[in-house]
Amino acid sequence: MKVLIAGGAGFIGSHLADALLEEGHKVVCIDNFFIGTKRNIEHLQTHPHFRLYEMDLCNFEALSSIFQEEKFDFVFHLAANSDIQASAKNPQIEYANTYTTTFNILESMRIYHVNKLFFASTSAVYGEKEGAHVDENSTPLEPISYYGAAKLGSEAMISAYSYMNQISALIFRFPNVIGPRLTHGVIYDFIKKLKHNSSELLILGDGLQTKPYMHVYDLILGIMSLKDNLPEGMSIYNIGVDTQTSVTRIADIICETMKLNEVKYTYSGGRGGWRGDVPIFAYNLDKILATGWHARWTSDEAVAKTVEEVL
Amino acid sequence: MKVLIAGGAGFIGSHLADALLEEGHKVVCIDNFFIGTKRNIEHLQTHPHFRLYEMDLCNFEALSSIFQEEKFDFVFHLAANSDIQASAKNPQIEYANTYTTTFNILESMRIYHVNKLFFASTSAVYGEKEGAHVDENSTPLEPISYYGAAKLGSEAMISAYSYMNQISALIFRFPNVIGPRLTHGVIYDFIKKLKHNSSELLILGDGLQTKPYMHVYDLILGIMSLKDNLPEGMSIYNIGVDTQTSVTRIADIICETMKLNEVKYTYSGGRGGWRGDVPIFAYNLDKILATGWHARWTSDEAVAKTVEEVL
Repeated sequence: MKVLIAGGAGFIGSHLADALLEEGHKVVCIDNFFIGTKRNIEHLQTHPHFRLYEMDLCNFEALSSIFQEEKFDFVFHLAANSDIQASAKNPQIEYANTYTTTFNILESMRIYHVNKLFFASTSAVYGEKEGAHVDENSTPLEPISYYGAAKLGSEAMISAYSYMNQISALIFRFPNVIGPRLTHGVIYDFIKKLKHNSSELLILGDGLQTKPYMHVYDLILGIMSLKDNLPEGMSIYNIGVDTQTSVTRIADIICETMKLNEVKYTYSGGRGGWRGDVPIFAYNLDKILATGWHARWTSDEAVAKTVEEVL
Repeated sequence: MKVLIAGGAGFIGSHLADALLEEGHKVVCIDNFFIGTKRNIEHLQTHPHFRLYEMDLCNFEALSSIFQEEKFDFVFHLAANSDIQASAKNPQIEYANTYTTTFNILESMRIYHVNKLFFASTSAVYGEKEGAHVDENSTPLEPISYYGAAKLGSEAMISAYSYMNQISALIFRFPNVIGPRLTHGVIYDFIKKLKHNSSELLILGDGLQTKPYMHVYDLILGIMSLKDNLPEGMSIYNIGVDTQTSVTRIADIICETMKLNEVKYTYSGGRGGWRGDVPIFAYNLDKILATGWHARWTSDEAVAKTVEEVL
């Protein structure tokens, strides 16, 4: 089939492009390279089934032309701002890059009759749910970040478009995803800081923030497995691992791997790393495990594997 | 206090303007007159505490200037597309007039430090929940109209802005609201049709669509009662009546009031009036009833009263 990957030059989008090409599909990638990089897809540039459009999805007319031209069978929408700390200072980033991109894709799908969608959502739609193992129907959904809010708004719009236009939509709510081509986040930051100064490490918050970290290869396997048998309507899944890793534990794993024994940790204090950060998080994964998919690496293993891969 | 009513020339917004002026507040109204009308507020134009800006809330720069100039204490956001049938054909209407208006208001509140918000949401955020009495935590939230989706997305963004900027936000999820100055909806349509042709009436759907109709004066009383003691964070309430009226019953009430005895009803068939219409709906109202507020008119009474008022 011919697929669009919106955000296909990003960390996760580029791995998905690899997997879809490997399976024999034609892949069209749209990216504005705000966060995605040419480097992530340079190995694909000469692939006969790969085509790249450098374009901002907020440009509805340009996007429409591509839909008209390409006649997609399936849209994988992974384009979004993924830097929550950046949008915490400037929410307009989420309005444009996370919400408007979704709306423009849905409008193009409606007009050009594309009826299969994968959407990358996030655990941030749940807001603070400390102590709970949140499942897909947990309530209330009160995001505390503009990022989570724009993703939840996107899910809502997908629900309406799915109903009104018979679009089968598969939504995964991602946890923290890590692995090769990572562009930001705690592992990326710690490695960068330690390469600059291997004697001390400033940790935002109290270091006890504890979340599930999932390896990108496990995520891609989940998308590839579930994409072929989409039920009617909208299907939402938590995806992740049932283990968690604290921020201090991540620092320890990085220091071990980098063979740094004398690093002094200092903490900025406070519970979250920044305002809008959800410090403790755990998923109920029953729904996705029932499909037969499961993660191959625990949270700690995914962290260790990622550190090896990106060092 | 000085308040902004966004959508203040609309059906509900103009009644809220009346009530806030009556209580002694200064009222600034912004309206683009897409749905709101000059007629709804002409009696206020000479009021010393009333000011009108004719402006589209999608124009962020213009909106920002007004926030800078006026220094609001409280924002009442009732601006939205309210014609679900129109946006069913063109979802861009909801993206602009329902979602973007909310985002621009929230950004202006953040920048100019306004920390009290009332937001008009809707039962449409729940999607199809036939047979249930939905409460505020009912799940999943899967809107089937672009209107419901844009409102749910707005609620999500309010949640994040509330958390990030200490904004106290009061959200009412409205049922069908009726009364003087009504601009569309089944009562409006039936009266218009019957004035044109009093021998027959075409009813969309099977006439069994059954929903709670609430009089606008009861809604305004609810807003006025709860606005003064806003708790921190975001508070969501279903508001409505615990009775419902079927579409055929509405036709009967209108014919009785208009003294038309020989009207022949024909039905377009199908369960909903149009795609995206939720045919059967009922609320659990425990949360708002616990505040001491209650509706003075049942659904049938509100319909009958409205027919008298708008004939």
